[in-house]
Amino acid sequence: MDLHGGNIYKIFREKEVDKILDYSSNINPFGLPESLKKAITENMDILEKYPDPDYYDLRKTIAEYNGTGIDNVLAGNGATELIFLYMKAVKPEKALILSPTFAEYERGIKSAAPQCEITYFHLKETEDFQPDMERLKDELQKGYDLIVLCNPNNPTGRFLPKEEIRDLLSECDKYGTRLFVDEAFVEFVEGGVSSSLAGEDINKKNLFIIRALTKFFALPGLRLGYALFFDSSLKEIFDSLKEPWSVNAFAELAGKTLFSNTEYIEKTENWIKEEKKYMFNELSKIKNIKVYKTETNFILLKMYNESASHVRGEMLKKGVLIRDASNFTYLDETFIRLAVKDRENNNIVIKKLDEVINGDNENE
Amino acid sequence: MDLHGGNIYKIFREKEVDKILDYSSNINPFGLPESLKKAITENMDILEKYPDPDYYDLRKTIAEYNGTGIDNVLAGNGATELIFLYMKAVKPEKALILSPTFAEYERGIKSAAPQCEITYFHLKETEDFQPDMERLKDELQKGYDLIVLCNPNNPTGRFLPKEEIRDLLSECDKYGTRLFVDEAFVEFVEGGVSSSLAGEDINKKNLFIIRALTKFFALPGLRLGYALFFDSSLKEIFDSLKEPWSVNAFAELAGKTLFSNTEYIEKTENWIKEEKKYMFNELSKIKNIKVYKTETNFILLKMYNESASHVRGEMLKKGVLIRDASNFTYLDETFIRLAVKDRENNNIVIKKLDEVINGDNENE
Repeated sequence: MDLHGGNIYKIFREKEVDKILDYSSNINPFGLPESLKKAITENMDILEKYPDPDYYDLRKTIAEYNGTGIDNVLAGNGATELIFLYMKAVKPEKALILSPTFAEYERGIKSAAPQCEITYFHLKETEDFQPDMERLKDELQKGYDLIVLCNPNNPTGRFLPKEEIRDLLSECDKYGTRLFVDEAFVEFVEGGVSSSLAGEDINKKNLFIIRALTKFFALPGLRLGYALFFDSSLKEIFDSLKEPWSVNAFAELAGKTLFSNTEYIEKTENWIKEEKKYMFNELSKIKNIKVYKTETNFILLKMYNESASHVRGEMLKKGVLIRDASNFTYLDETFIRLAVKDRENNNIVIKKLDEVINGDNENE
Repeated sequence: MDLHGGNIYKIFREKEVDKILDYSSNINPFGLPESLKKAITENMDILEKYPDPDYYDLRKTIAEYNGTGIDNVLAGNGATELIFLYMKAVKPEKALILSPTFAEYERGIKSAAPQCEITYFHLKETEDFQPDMERLKDELQKGYDLIVLCNPNNPTGRFLPKEEIRDLLSECDKYGTRLFVDEAFVEFVEGGVSSSLAGEDINKKNLFIIRALTKFFALPGLRLGYALFFDSSLKEIFDSLKEPWSVNAFAELAGKTLFSNTEYIEKTENWIKEEKKYMFNELSKIKNIKVYKTETNFILLKMYNESASHVRGEMLKKGVLIRDASNFTYLDETFIRLAVKDRENNNIVIKKLDEVINGDNENE
């Protein structure tokens, strides 16, 4: 599989380079929290038992973190398992996906409901990919059973505040439309989880939210995601479809350890607040590209004179892996995506990108 | 979920007991290999990356261990993911399951192909649950597209040697019937993986084998299983259906570490060879039960005067969790299953079982 354009293992195997700065995946540069390393070292023996098939304690911790009930929480092997599971449970017949966006929603729908009529709601380049909410509400009248959006959106970095999601949800309620929101990057938004609708005391029956610990806690290798759902009739369907023990014991431990790590959380919040501004400003100084405003830890760029595949290749020669964003629906070979990481590496990547796009001597 | 009768977490939550000897799950009593603990401690940072979506190195190690090609190997989140994936890929219309057996095969078929006509091939109590191969071959004439068997079989402990599987497979070839064999416990059989057909140089197109590292390497919490398949046309289907990164980075590390741990493997082989005999002999001395011969690390028992639920409850009061086997197809409330563990605990469990079945003063 050559997933999402960033298979570093394949790159190493094929010996394109032997060391790499990975700006294609959007992982917190502070790395794995020390508290989790400690917990793993001290609890190695939990591997000798099957995980709790109900993931009771884990779900309790997640519920407390989000201000929901434990019965609103479903744990999964990364958010990916939950995308596929949800699609299997609701088997949509007519779905609307706000696009460009992460490709797995469509893959999940097609896998669960091959007959589903999938329509893209076009997030327009001319509108800087910000959803036009009035146009979206009009579109809802066409009678979808499912709306899918990613918030903040990958790869555009745009974020809809919870008031907008609340309005959209109440519009969905009119038509009996389910609303799927991927909040895998929500902790990087200013306000963090409080900028989500998850903990609000309103009718959320049609809302389904997925989250991952992957990005914020820098543990994509551990595989922990969760869903927040508010339609109790889904519980039985999930139970009947879910494969047992999909969350491993260390992922379970991570969930129980990390939400209370306020030091790591605050440190990350402070870093991203500064660094996304810095990186946006510095990238904006580079000629011949357009930099899209972001509210999370990655940045979409459009290049006026270069192709993504060429720039990706040239950056790779310089030891930096970036995301060629041309395979997102509605994007083309002029788009790339960069992660936001620590200042030192960001500066290196910004400089190299300028070199690739404008030539080595551009600023001399 | 109250899976397979042994949810110890629920028991603890409901405070039935606060410490337990778990004889309901069949895990190697030597526990997590030290080499893996060391590898995890020294490679904590692999969690900061996504696992290799191709699991190339892991599959290479597995292929070498089994004498197959790397393209014959599929890695999964425990064997469970692979049961479900296989059923989704082949979508059987008429399946035969050798029963009693592990319930997940039927669950997997029903989830993937709800219309599938499922027939049980009855492994008879009067034949000590040993499959009658002639009767099975006759049954094949009815035109199944899939035969499912577990070898060694859970919960009966019976094992079909590879010559029998080879004959069965060649019979399957006549009718274009696929043969699914769960070998999750094969390493506990005398001869280990060499008693499997996996590495034999014959036409194995219709054969699909699943394995887990769960039981033998005592890591049910880590979630690593794999499949060996020989029908190259399945590869594309698996690729299209498989959820990415279902195997976590530590599970990947375990696969790369453990197959070369010959010390642990030999120690375990020596232990199980002795201990299954010992436990069979000692249990056979208990009155009012029948002990079935086993070739693996668990033992099926039939009780003449007691019900499984009663005995399970009484054993739990004594701090031992056993498997009430009454919910296996064709078994009833007279059946229980015990793990084979270390000598000291086996003696404790044997004594307590005798007390529960025959009264505390039975031997006085």
